[in-house]
Amino acid sequence: MAQSITDINGVYASAIESGIKSKGLDLGLLYVPNAVAAAAVFTQHKFKASSVSYTQKCLKRYTLKAMIINSGNANAVTGKQGNLNTKLMASQTAKLLGLNPNEVGVASTGIIGKPLPMNHIETGIITLCKQKEDKQGNQLAESILTTDLVPKSTFKQAKIGKKTIQIAGITKGSGMIAPNMATTLGFLVTNVKLNQEILQQCLTKAINKSYNMLSVDTDTSTNDMVVCFASGEYAINQHDPEQINAFQNCLDEACIDLAMQIAKDGEGASKLIEVRVIHAARYSDAQQIAKQVCDSPLVKTAIHGEDPNWGRLIMAIGKNHTVKLNPDKIQVMLGNETIINNGQPTDIARTKLKKQLQTSKVIITIDCAIGNATATAWGCDLTKGYIDINTEYN
Amino acid sequence: MAQSITDINGVYASAIESGIKSKGLDLGLLYVPNAVAAAAVFTQHKFKASSVSYTQKCLKRYTLKAMIINSGNANAVTGKQGNLNTKLMASQTAKLLGLNPNEVGVASTGIIGKPLPMNHIETGIITLCKQKEDKQGNQLAESILTTDLVPKSTFKQAKIGKKTIQIAGITKGSGMIAPNMATTLGFLVTNVKLNQEILQQCLTKAINKSYNMLSVDTDTSTNDMVVCFASGEYAINQHDPEQINAFQNCLDEACIDLAMQIAKDGEGASKLIEVRVIHAARYSDAQQIAKQVCDSPLVKTAIHGEDPNWGRLIMAIGKNHTVKLNPDKIQVMLGNETIINNGQPTDIARTKLKKQLQTSKVIITIDCAIGNATATAWGCDLTKGYIDINTEYN
Repeated sequence: MAQSITDINGVYASAIESGIKSKGLDLGLLYVPNAVAAAAVFTQHKFKASSVSYTQKCLKRYTLKAMIINSGNANAVTGKQGNLNTKLMASQTAKLLGLNPNEVGVASTGIIGKPLPMNHIETGIITLCKQKEDKQGNQLAESILTTDLVPKSTFKQAKIGKKTIQIAGITKGSGMIAPNMATTLGFLVTNVKLNQEILQQCLTKAINKSYNMLSVDTDTSTNDMVVCFASGEYAINQHDPEQINAFQNCLDEACIDLAMQIAKDGEGASKLIEVRVIHAARYSDAQQIAKQVCDSPLVKTAIHGEDPNWGRLIMAIGKNHTVKLNPDKIQVMLGNETIINNGQPTDIARTKLKKQLQTSKVIITIDCAIGNATATAWGCDLTKGYIDINTEYN
Repeated sequence: MAQSITDINGVYASAIESGIKSKGLDLGLLYVPNAVAAAAVFTQHKFKASSVSYTQKCLKRYTLKAMIINSGNANAVTGKQGNLNTKLMASQTAKLLGLNPNEVGVASTGIIGKPLPMNHIETGIITLCKQKEDKQGNQLAESILTTDLVPKSTFKQAKIGKKTIQIAGITKGSGMIAPNMATTLGFLVTNVKLNQEILQQCLTKAINKSYNMLSVDTDTSTNDMVVCFASGEYAINQHDPEQINAFQNCLDEACIDLAMQIAKDGEGASKLIEVRVIHAARYSDAQQIAKQVCDSPLVKTAIHGEDPNWGRLIMAIGKNHTVKLNPDKIQVMLGNETIINNGQPTDIARTKLKKQLQTSKVIITIDCAIGNATATAWGCDLTKGYIDINTEYN
């Protein structure tokens, strides 16, 4: 079994089958009693779930020490009762853990618009709080899944000064994936000691390079949230740019690892797509081009069919007229093969291109040749599996 | 047989099987020898096909009198030879019709990145110009199709003063449909007499309400172009706002009719989706909300499965944080049934909602209750047919 979030000192987790889903783990507790800082990013959706608004409010004045998390029901667009239910989950958990209700965040994921089965949840919280010091990191990773096929976790280490710091995380997500400032659910823990403001800055930066560069289907969830707890074991020097940089790199790696796992497990996906844009005029241009190629249904279906119809790649690269591009300078590569050089097709053989598509990870590189900005986005192919999963979700 | 573009006096058309496609009509001529004005809108794609750049240039100083149009090959991203081939198509047609090459527009549609088979095209143009005064409007409508299942045409009339003016049009498009200032190919003719500048203004307005509110798959073509010819038979008073308004309304109707035919014939589509946004704060907000609901793969698959999972509708309405929305005021209707009232779910029975989805046209109405702006967008459901068509297009 791979290392899990509970392999970090002072981090506890457990999960149970409470009955929200028809079967499987669906309610979990993440508990970091000595957390010195907690940071989070949230969906910018207009119809935020009550778990998002509630946890956002807690973070303004308190350091989170725990998260109570359910899958199988998003508790979004559930009216006033939905808000009350979120608060009930937090206050019941807080009472049993001896915390202030504002120290307990709430996260929910699953179907939108259905009332939470509070009887199952209340009984479940009692069980979870009895085993609050369990080390079931892998079970928690499993309990947050919805249409995901596999649990997703990461464990990264870095040497900072003489200490080895650790960052571990779990995440979920397979459909309704097109984050904006955050996506889906993700929970990270680190053993460093640093203040909340700096942790928030680092997390926001890492999310912009990872979760926010991820798209399975262009749809954005009402419940997206990524939270990071710092357990405070190892102090790092917050005034030393080198130390902060080392921490940032380790956090970036952890977030990118989680984001790629989501793309790979996209609903119905058979291939991971990585689009690298280099030498763009502006960072926002590089991001936009990378994401729009990942999002193009015609690129996604061609890759699924291993059909080297590279015209569609060009279509997807140029479809947004607000982006700076010089059609006469661009270079485009599919895997190791160059398709377009200085804006001219290279007449490469179809069979050679097809080979670049017969892999589980397809890499597209777009060299804009007009600047220094770089961005990478991740997505997946579009298959009949996606249609199957989503024509009858209820 | 329905009325066609060649039922307008002074409008001629013909089409042949030239051999660009493996079978079927693929080369056509539209000829309006006495055109007094011609206006057009074009794709804003960064990798414009040479037919787009060429025709754009012609229109700056000349009145188009004819269009030579091929399907089966987009002649886009075909390098310098591609540009030469477009010019050759125009100059050969012009010579045989006795026109200046700048009076002949070129339109191409089909696969991107393959050289045009010029031998077939040159022979074809000779045949077409011999029958230049044919009245084969319906054949021309057929010759411009690619993955379309049915030809698409419109014929509208309006009383302006004592005269009955006519506007007729043909269009194509089924995939790579998410226009920006124009989409796909569309050709309109009217028997009015008015100047080029006013015709251009009217066409731009009509396209913004019709083609630009259309999305099959969010992908934008390199070759989009809609051209409108005025044959000059009936003069309208360009200084009378009432007359211009009557013409505008008739042109709007024609363009909306064509756009809806494209949505209905979207690749793999089984249902037409119409999203009406009312009482939005700004027109751009109304447009954005209507389009993002039409574009959402999760809404499209739910509608395909006739699955009344209305949470996805809310997800799609709120996913863009730049739009002005008040979650506590909004009203959402699926067909005749209200799902959300003042931001609260109405608890309507699933069976009643399912009934609203068991139709070939699904209507979603979103009342933002914060302003006076209105927009309507059209799209289609997402099915395995789309995946089938696009995994192996070559």
